[in-house]
Amino acid sequence: MHLDSNTSHQARPIRIAIVGHGNLGRGVEAAVAKNPDMVIAGIYTRRDPAQLKPLTVGVAVHHMDSLMGHKGAIDVLVLCGGSKDDLPRQSPELAAHFSLVDSFDTHARIPEHFASVDAAAQAGQTTALISAGWDPGMFSINRVLGEALLPDGATYTFWGKGLSQGHSDAVRRVPGVAGGVQYTIPIDAAVDQVRSGVRPELSTREKHRRECFVVLEAGADAEAVRQAIVSMPHYFDEYDTTVHFIGAEELAREHGAMPHGGFVIRSGNTSDANKQVIEYRLQLDSNPEFTSSVLVAYARAVHRMRQAGQFGCKTVFDVAPGLLSPKSAAALREQLL
Amino acid sequence: MHLDSNTSHQARPIRIAIVGHGNLGRGVEAAVAKNPDMVIAGIYTRRDPAQLKPLTVGVAVHHMDSLMGHKGAIDVLVLCGGSKDDLPRQSPELAAHFSLVDSFDTHARIPEHFASVDAAAQAGQTTALISAGWDPGMFSINRVLGEALLPDGATYTFWGKGLSQGHSDAVRRVPGVAGGVQYTIPIDAAVDQVRSGVRPELSTREKHRRECFVVLEAGADAEAVRQAIVSMPHYFDEYDTTVHFIGAEELAREHGAMPHGGFVIRSGNTSDANKQVIEYRLQLDSNPEFTSSVLVAYARAVHRMRQAGQFGCKTVFDVAPGLLSPKSAAALREQLL
Repeated sequence: MHLDSNTSHQARPIRIAIVGHGNLGRGVEAAVAKNPDMVIAGIYTRRDPAQLKPLTVGVAVHHMDSLMGHKGAIDVLVLCGGSKDDLPRQSPELAAHFSLVDSFDTHARIPEHFASVDAAAQAGQTTALISAGWDPGMFSINRVLGEALLPDGATYTFWGKGLSQGHSDAVRRVPGVAGGVQYTIPIDAAVDQVRSGVRPELSTREKHRRECFVVLEAGADAEAVRQAIVSMPHYFDEYDTTVHFIGAEELAREHGAMPHGGFVIRSGNTSDANKQVIEYRLQLDSNPEFTSSVLVAYARAVHRMRQAGQFGCKTVFDVAPGLLSPKSAAALREQLL
Repeated sequence: MHLDSNTSHQARPIRIAIVGHGNLGRGVEAAVAKNPDMVIAGIYTRRDPAQLKPLTVGVAVHHMDSLMGHKGAIDVLVLCGGSKDDLPRQSPELAAHFSLVDSFDTHARIPEHFASVDAAAQAGQTTALISAGWDPGMFSINRVLGEALLPDGATYTFWGKGLSQGHSDAVRRVPGVAGGVQYTIPIDAAVDQVRSGVRPELSTREKHRRECFVVLEAGADAEAVRQAIVSMPHYFDEYDTTVHFIGAEELAREHGAMPHGGFVIRSGNTSDANKQVIEYRLQLDSNPEFTSSVLVAYARAVHRMRQAGQFGCKTVFDVAPGLLSPKSAAALREQLL
């Protein structure tokens, strides 16, 4: 590990434990490798540890059952489970004993998740940051900053072009579908209007369209499948959706990546004469790898906040930008202000 | 004042005093009018207060000499003077007695300004935030976040298209020039390359070009003026510069506004296979009004940090996003996370 004299690295690197080793967990492994002030203390899984192959040579893989016994060897847990079943249970349970970061993204249930994690973290004197990533996460920060800087204005969030995991799952559950993916695509005309600062009112259908690439099961009725997809409540009925039928080979070859992104635009007036537009944009080759990079940067902040005695549940709104950087406050002022 | 039940507004609004009433000071007046949790406690000037016309009916104008006597009636000063002569003296002097925000933007002298303001604010138990605005300011935050989220990457800052005050002043100092303005313009080819994620190495000339609109004095030699401008060291010699000669009437009609903006792009890899690009972009009809809006949002944060006992000099790197918003932490989590 290289210790730059401009940094506030401590002699001991921050010890990150990864809980769960799907796309997100593998992304955390890759992200820690890019951050010289951190090391992976271990990967924890509910599967058979012998079956799990870490990306990094020499990284230890353990069963979840041994996590509590390793408490003294871990600074921050990065939880890589799902928001539906894993995190609502895991985050409060583990926050009682460990500082942690999760990517809980069920917007409607954030207040309740916050409350249960906060109670556990306050009692355990740990620091637990929930809902990190890009949305919720970086996009949320930009919604707050946009409102604060331009109180007389409107905020717009566009997603894509990108592969939506939830919508792809929904497509694959349709009878007759053997495989498929769904892309969310912002509509250019809407984006252009928003960027011009006129603050349009836009319907759901006017903001995004959806495009599906579907492999049919043998004998399935293409038109029936198409109808089932485009009329699916909540997922597709409020959008213009195009369905393309392709072969299994093309699906594997052309649609195996997980690109995503989008933008948050705040447009507002500082006076009657003057419009101002703020835009934050992400263009991601890999949605899970970027999400993991955000989790890892927030793990650094969480470690520092716990050391400073700031216990309890936190969100990205509670973290000063400087805490995310390995550089010292003086180096940041000198180099980046 | 409207008190929303979702906000953490206190019964008493934050009392902002404006020091200096140029473009920035007028922008602060306009910004406070957009923030219902704030009021203007007064405008302070070194000129004759009777000669100064506030934008807002009923706002009191005082001479600087009376500022110390009003200490109990002010929560935060927003300093609207210049970085060359005013702020290096004013900020430390006033930070001994008041919480404040300034927009000090002489990058090379930030460490020394920080040190003198910090000593005064620590002694006076005040909170003083320096170098707020958009660059330094919002752009700086995005440079720090970009590095922290994508440590294996490169950061690019582009300015414009916008009117540069410093370069316009330099043009107007050239003998034979009666008036003029200068626009800084990012070069599309460079921006496109950066957005593609290839991390190009770009020279100064490749990133921006400069365009001047100049009114000649009677009898001045246009070619001599053009040469003097395009060869001016530091300001123009490293750029491709175009000089247009126009009439005084056209200058007044077409070039009286102060638009600006630009973007910070971080491009990096989270793994060999995956590039990720983050872009933060501002498109401003009025540079001073936007800067003032940033100063006012940070005044809110400074007020809260002082109430929390966080004394000393701060920068935008030390301020959690939630502190900038009038909404409570719970409301932010519920509405914007």
